[in-house]
Amino acid sequence: MSSRSPLARPFPALPAVAGARPAVSRAHYKSWDRCDLTFVMLDEGTSVAGVLTNSKCPSPEVEWCRKALTLGHARALVVNAGNSNAFTGNRGCAAVEAIAARAAAHIGCQPSDIFVASTGVIGVPLPIDKAEAGLDAARAAPECGWLAAAEAIGTTDTFPKGGVQQAVVDGRTVTLIGIIKGSGMIAPDMATMLGFIFTDAAVEPGFLQQLLNGANRHSFSCITVDGDTSTSDTVLAFATGKTGAAPLSSHEDAGADAFAAALEALCLDLAHQVVRDGEGASKFIEVQVTGATTYGSAHRIAMSIANSPLVKTAVAGEDANWGRIVMAVGKAGEPADRDLLSIRFGNTIVAERGCAVEGYDEAPVAAHLKGHDVEIGVDLGMGDGRATVWTCDLTHGYISINADYRS
Amino acid sequence: MSSRSPLARPFPALPAVAGARPAVSRAHYKSWDRCDLTFVMLDEGTSVAGVLTNSKCPSPEVEWCRKALTLGHARALVVNAGNSNAFTGNRGCAAVEAIAARAAAHIGCQPSDIFVASTGVIGVPLPIDKAEAGLDAARAAPECGWLAAAEAIGTTDTFPKGGVQQAVVDGRTVTLIGIIKGSGMIAPDMATMLGFIFTDAAVEPGFLQQLLNGANRHSFSCITVDGDTSTSDTVLAFATGKTGAAPLSSHEDAGADAFAAALEALCLDLAHQVVRDGEGASKFIEVQVTGATTYGSAHRIAMSIANSPLVKTAVAGEDANWGRIVMAVGKAGEPADRDLLSIRFGNTIVAERGCAVEGYDEAPVAAHLKGHDVEIGVDLGMGDGRATVWTCDLTHGYISINADYRS
Repeated sequence: MSSRSPLARPFPALPAVAGARPAVSRAHYKSWDRCDLTFVMLDEGTSVAGVLTNSKCPSPEVEWCRKALTLGHARALVVNAGNSNAFTGNRGCAAVEAIAARAAAHIGCQPSDIFVASTGVIGVPLPIDKAEAGLDAARAAPECGWLAAAEAIGTTDTFPKGGVQQAVVDGRTVTLIGIIKGSGMIAPDMATMLGFIFTDAAVEPGFLQQLLNGANRHSFSCITVDGDTSTSDTVLAFATGKTGAAPLSSHEDAGADAFAAALEALCLDLAHQVVRDGEGASKFIEVQVTGATTYGSAHRIAMSIANSPLVKTAVAGEDANWGRIVMAVGKAGEPADRDLLSIRFGNTIVAERGCAVEGYDEAPVAAHLKGHDVEIGVDLGMGDGRATVWTCDLTHGYISINADYRS
Repeated sequence: MSSRSPLARPFPALPAVAGARPAVSRAHYKSWDRCDLTFVMLDEGTSVAGVLTNSKCPSPEVEWCRKALTLGHARALVVNAGNSNAFTGNRGCAAVEAIAARAAAHIGCQPSDIFVASTGVIGVPLPIDKAEAGLDAARAAPECGWLAAAEAIGTTDTFPKGGVQQAVVDGRTVTLIGIIKGSGMIAPDMATMLGFIFTDAAVEPGFLQQLLNGANRHSFSCITVDGDTSTSDTVLAFATGKTGAAPLSSHEDAGADAFAAALEALCLDLAHQVVRDGEGASKFIEVQVTGATTYGSAHRIAMSIANSPLVKTAVAGEDANWGRIVMAVGKAGEPADRDLLSIRFGNTIVAERGCAVEGYDEAPVAAHLKGHDVEIGVDLGMGDGRATVWTCDLTHGYISINADYRS
């Protein structure tokens, strides 16, 4: 890992999740001395849901998971770091099939019960021999903690990322933990990079999918680092059902709403950690858009601001350049009226109803922009549509990382 | 001007255009010692056409020009550099009205015959007293050359930009010259930054507009520096008709096609110069997309590639990272089939039908990427849609310019 992001958060203490046993090994996908294969074995009865990239050029792993998700059951997750296996033709598909077959043989299940995700360089077929040897080693290894797994799935990440939530379902406390990796190529379209959630709750696959879709909509779909959508974006949620309660199957069930709230809080926590590890990031930026005609319109305007290189460099320079925010609102193509628009940094309104607030107090704005967490508020003054998205600033660090990263 | 772009072209020798008399003056919009007001007086009978930003938050100048264009006639152009007057409410509108009134009084025409464009910081009302004094000074100044005008309209530009074309219309040679400014906030939506074209040809306003729309579609609408669309993008074309021929009014007229071709070549030349002055640019990148299902689809995929920070930083690093091109194709949301996709740098195909070309010769690719002009070709293998767009790389220079530029 390169030097730790100044926005990093400490890795939280994550408890074991009954029915999910992570192990890691060295598959040597790159010439590094670190664990780069993660094998999470799941007990029988585990249900699964997932959201996957909308890229038209997805990795074979994404296609595999999309197909396997239709069955709703999982017995293991395999994650490879250092090689995304994307855009590798038939050889890439063969690698995923070989991994699923090998893992299924270890566990004694169908290959379609195995979920596979890979991250790293695009265009190099994943070496099957290394994957198989790595799987064998992980199978033989002792169970590891979630921190080791969070580290093993990372690539350009500068810190391991994870989160935990609890909820009371039908009188029993259930635990949800998640780990995630991602730093660049972050503008998830339905999902982000690689994120994995494990819970001991019992949840029917269809309902789990419905809850994950909802949580995703307000978390992973609301972050961007560079507007670039990965070929491999994957978020999977596994519910082992080890608490022994009857499975949740609808919002009518006792505790379903508490579980949904915990899942959404966990997804949001994980999504924020990805932004905090945005390549070269020195500021965590929250963009709040209110007063738009619809939610969708608010979201698109917020993303237009969050993806604007000129807004992101202004924040990097701690410059209250709200003119660039006007520009980003204007280019979004959504309903907007210049003469109703208001803009604030933190709690200070700097422009209102189409022009600068004369003589606004610059001191609190400057102080706000000097901090690590920056809040930009835009009110369109037109309707009730509101959305919040998160991004980071654009710095020399991003250029250094990406102009020097060799394929 | 900051240090000259390594991609700069020398300013060409631009001839005078009969019926158009440029003059410049110091309006002191900023604390600099340079001409920043340009006043081009046009003889009676001059027709005009224009393409303006699609921003939902346009400057009052853009709104003024949009209204004046409906009349089709022009007697003068006024360009202010250093203050865009955008997002300034009623005071901004009043400034444009005052400028048009003052210029009209000097010339003896209607204010609606005056076209106004401004560029610079957003959110500060243009000072009317400075504009009026500058206009008076320009009115009293001797006619200047197009180089002086090209310099006076610039802001963060590192070199003055202009072009010239000729065409034979009905047996007479007509001249078209253009000047343009722009370097950042370049992702024109129908038009780009500030560009002005003058010709001594006689062209009916409606037909001039039709020709400009066509030329714009394949030039200014095909360039991007940072994906950010200005609030002030404006291209205006003025035809003084001084050659004395009957005005062109349709493609049936003798020489109309030659004139249209010259106009398109001029627009393309000017558009390329804007990319060559892209903020921080070290490479001029041409993205050619073929085999798409439609022209629109090809254009959107090409723009997705040209706007990808990861593709642009890879080119800056002279890295043949075609995986990032796959990513950008995939995120465009347009029809694409990974297993039909081919990618080339210069003349070397590096990926074909969904996987890397094994053992392709890296030497010509490396040599191509080391040059100033980089060509990326993507064939989708699906249909006949093709489009070409132009951009520049993303470097530390862009960050330095935009993180330090104070509002």
